[in-house]
Amino acid sequence: MEFSELIKTATVENVLLSRQGLPAVRGTLCISSHHLLLSSCPRGDLELWLLIRNVDAVEKRVHNLGWYQPPRTGGSLRDTRFCGSSGTITLRCKDLRVLQLEIPGMEQCLNVASSIEALSSVDSVMMLYPFFFRPPSLRLQQGWHRFPPERFFQQLSSQTSQWRLSTVNRDFSACPSYPPAVIVPAAVGDDTVAKAARFRHGGRFPVLSYFHPRNGTALLRSSQPLTGPNRRRCREDEQLLGTILDEGERGFIIDTRSAQAAKQARMSGGGTEPKSCYPQWRRLHRALDRGRPLQESFARLVEACSDPAPSMERWLARLDGSRWLSHVKAALSTACLAAQCLDREGCKVLVHGAEGTDTTLLVTALAQLILDPSCRTLEGFQALLQREWIEAGHPFQLRCARSASSHARGKQEAPIFLLFLDCVWQLSRQFPLSLEFGEQLLLTLFDNAYASCYGTFLCNCEKERSLCKVKESTHSLWAWLNQPEERHKYLNPLYSHNPLVIWPSVEPQSIQLWQGLFLRWIRPSQHLDEAWEEIQRLVEGNNSSNKEGTGEKLGQSLPEPTAGTESR
Amino acid sequence: MEFSELIKTATVENVLLSRQGLPAVRGTLCISSHHLLLSSCPRGDLELWLLIRNVDAVEKRVHNLGWYQPPRTGGSLRDTRFCGSSGTITLRCKDLRVLQLEIPGMEQCLNVASSIEALSSVDSVMMLYPFFFRPPSLRLQQGWHRFPPERFFQQLSSQTSQWRLSTVNRDFSACPSYPPAVIVPAAVGDDTVAKAARFRHGGRFPVLSYFHPRNGTALLRSSQPLTGPNRRRCREDEQLLGTILDEGERGFIIDTRSAQAAKQARMSGGGTEPKSCYPQWRRLHRALDRGRPLQESFARLVEACSDPAPSMERWLARLDGSRWLSHVKAALSTACLAAQCLDREGCKVLVHGAEGTDTTLLVTALAQLILDPSCRTLEGFQALLQREWIEAGHPFQLRCARSASSHARGKQEAPIFLLFLDCVWQLSRQFPLSLEFGEQLLLTLFDNAYASCYGTFLCNCEKERSLCKVKESTHSLWAWLNQPEERHKYLNPLYSHNPLVIWPSVEPQSIQLWQGLFLRWIRPSQHLDEAWEEIQRLVEGNNSSNKEGTGEKLGQSLPEPTAGTESR
Repeated sequence: MEFSELIKTATVENVLLSRQGLPAVRGTLCISSHHLLLSSCPRGDLELWLLIRNVDAVEKRVHNLGWYQPPRTGGSLRDTRFCGSSGTITLRCKDLRVLQLEIPGMEQCLNVASSIEALSSVDSVMMLYPFFFRPPSLRLQQGWHRFPPERFFQQLSSQTSQWRLSTVNRDFSACPSYPPAVIVPAAVGDDTVAKAARFRHGGRFPVLSYFHPRNGTALLRSSQPLTGPNRRRCREDEQLLGTILDEGERGFIIDTRSAQAAKQARMSGGGTEPKSCYPQWRRLHRALDRGRPLQESFARLVEACSDPAPSMERWLARLDGSRWLSHVKAALSTACLAAQCLDREGCKVLVHGAEGTDTTLLVTALAQLILDPSCRTLEGFQALLQREWIEAGHPFQLRCARSASSHARGKQEAPIFLLFLDCVWQLSRQFPLSLEFGEQLLLTLFDNAYASCYGTFLCNCEKERSLCKVKESTHSLWAWLNQPEERHKYLNPLYSHNPLVIWPSVEPQSIQLWQGLFLRWIRPSQHLDEAWEEIQRLVEGNNSSNKEGTGEKLGQSLPEPTAGTESR
Repeated sequence: MEFSELIKTATVENVLLSRQGLPAVRGTLCISSHHLLLSSCPRGDLELWLLIRNVDAVEKRVHNLGWYQPPRTGGSLRDTRFCGSSGTITLRCKDLRVLQLEIPGMEQCLNVASSIEALSSVDSVMMLYPFFFRPPSLRLQQGWHRFPPERFFQQLSSQTSQWRLSTVNRDFSACPSYPPAVIVPAAVGDDTVAKAARFRHGGRFPVLSYFHPRNGTALLRSSQPLTGPNRRRCREDEQLLGTILDEGERGFIIDTRSAQAAKQARMSGGGTEPKSCYPQWRRLHRALDRGRPLQESFARLVEACSDPAPSMERWLARLDGSRWLSHVKAALSTACLAAQCLDREGCKVLVHGAEGTDTTLLVTALAQLILDPSCRTLEGFQALLQREWIEAGHPFQLRCARSASSHARGKQEAPIFLLFLDCVWQLSRQFPLSLEFGEQLLLTLFDNAYASCYGTFLCNCEKERSLCKVKESTHSLWAWLNQPEERHKYLNPLYSHNPLVIWPSVEPQSIQLWQGLFLRWIRPSQHLDEAWEEIQRLVEGNNSSNKEGTGEKLGQSLPEPTAGTESR
């Protein structure tokens, strides 16, 4: 395939661009293989530079203002003449922006629309922009090995010898969606692990997600066991989970499905760990929506947010009807439950739903943020995303193929990762000093998960990334983010290391709409941004003056906050 | 009346105090004329020091744990013995706090409850605590003449000669709810004004509320004209309003009732300005709820907020059902309308509803905050409150007699002033740099409007304050607030003078629940408070270091924010 085949019209003059909250501009529209550009006339400023992959839905409306000359016999649409007519293309972007292009000439309008449609839905990964993007400030390999599993394990092994780094999956044979290196109980061999993998959905055998140094407990994740209608057992799986617990010790399995859904899963080969075979594990069910219901919730919320002038009643009814905040509440509550089992009950916890790639990762990643101060730094949060989302096999390509507006919704799309980011935002709002990064990072992650210049969120798992040579042929988002001039934008100026567990309040009264994301293009947040920048300036002013004075950074000399209150 | 007659039991040992979000403490309860005190045993710390006036509702529940000995014939309840029994008193405070006292002995419990009930509902103003409170750091007269009307007029007269300070009301004869000095058109004499007063509900003739220096327009307020069923006219009222407008000039009357309600008001002697008699004035109706619907909205919201574990659906339904946010939106929208008429249309505006003491003041005060940067300083905001709420005759004593929980709701209670504070909070959230004061000031004002040690919010108007000798016999809240060590608590560390009009977004998506007030005692805001303090420390650090360096304050050397975007 050549991109040029998809581009029916490369340049259109006299196009009017309208965007929410910005004055309309007229200029020349150019369509390249990966970008939509608009430079204004007469000033020639580049007014728009849009990654075409960011386009979620293209809507076209033609206004026939003049006369119509039908195509000659055997002629194509190209020969049709719609003189004096024009068309409007509405582009709904994956980052929730809405752009309007008013294009003179119906034919040109239809050509532009179909070019954008074709370019935005290229489905070969290796044709995507990250494989072509070559920023001068970065080297290709940079950032890809910033968070090696070996380093994570090294830190772990300094605290406990109960776990080992296994390469049983080095060729992705045990579990195609796991990375080559995973952490398993030291007491079980790779053959046992490989056999246990065959008893788990998609091969996702139980692996260590997080070790809680305070009391030596651990958080594990997996997929559902393949119990099936005949109540199949697997000694190796039982052994793997059994060896984790000492005699008399109790563990918790948090199943992210309802008890009924878990039971029904047996009919299609899945199921749960029966009490009789896993006697030391107690199962708790906390149903978290995923898949279609979550995708529809997202779409409904975005629709409600762009309702131009609803009454307060209508807005609250639509907000409620979207159920998005209920999903946020449920995710945070379940993560708190996992964190409580670990920190308060001192028990090991295994989290899984069905496939173990969605709500499972949502819960384990959030629980770590709540428990572990090192995940709350800018560096630690990136490591968490790399380990618990990207390498853990959240299928980004399937889940984030389309965003809230696409009418051609696939079965696999679901904003699980966005839900995670929203929960992190809720944490950052409730604990404004405890996270080293701010809202801007969360917005950037959302944008890049759906359309990016970088390869970090490409593909569904490490195996696919390896096949597509993502790490060899694309740049890493982490390399870009961590350049000093970029990194600075994502820091929370108020951050102060908080060694405690941060228990969020999960009462509905405390859960807020993430306006910075859902209203980003609709309501100007200029004044809030100014406040943020002002705080940044203050911190910098303080740091530089303090350095000059005592050589000490104010951020470090402040009294420790007394965080860590308990939610009811 | 002697307070001692109302106190049936002055001291009770072994009382258990429970409060939201705090550990329970056991101690000795003392009831004084104005306070409820609890000192813990064995440490003797003073755990509670509650102004009894702050109690909104007393609920009692007795637990009969032992045997019951009936009273002897002719004996009183005092002779009854409930041995081994105890009682729980729940105190719902006007500041929305909820306290529980567990009191040993049913008799003692009932005595304590009835003492608190009696003391909290003393209705003689001069028996209230402000008449007894004598803080050592303040002098009695201090603060009462901080914002003299003469100074406000002096500033005005340097900009225009169209207005004059009239003393037509020096003995409160023209309008009992107006202050002695008011600003009226320079072209009309006091006799005309006095006659116009007789044509307005409660004598509230049109007076100047705000002069907009940018274009010389003015904001006026009054009550409804007494048109009545016979379409009465008043030449003097017509003259007063006519003289304000030049020939051909148009003015707007914003009526805070629906057109229908304004029409119906004629049946009870009120009404509106008919087009034929006020030909240059165009009437706009914007219905704002007040009175009972607003009071019930407040009560429903507070109930919803204290629902301990609702589902997200139930919470959003209750939030919607309370209609509080709709009231906030409507108030802000109407204030924006008034501000737009002045600033954009360059037209004079008269605001009134029926009595001119509630929604009228809500709109004129908010419009000034939106338009006038000098109202957004700590000093200017106090002056605005003094001029547009206290001296303008908002009947605080009637409106704030009871708060959200009282079952004995009078007909006159309505949280109009709270609604104003909520709207100011929305402004401060949308423009975090533009107001010199922060949330703490708004909370303090709310608390003091409902129960206070100071005389500032006592009585319903200046006439009553004069009769009760409030200014001679009580301390002013402003005197206390402006002491350097107090003042500091109320400042917004991010404040930077913004000379522009601040147009808030009034879309429902932008209106938020004021968690700092409505969830103050329910959800810990400790982490948010810490963030605020941290910013304060940063600003102080910066200021002191900058002073040492360049002798310039950072707050003043920052670039001017480019505020003043328009809401759709």
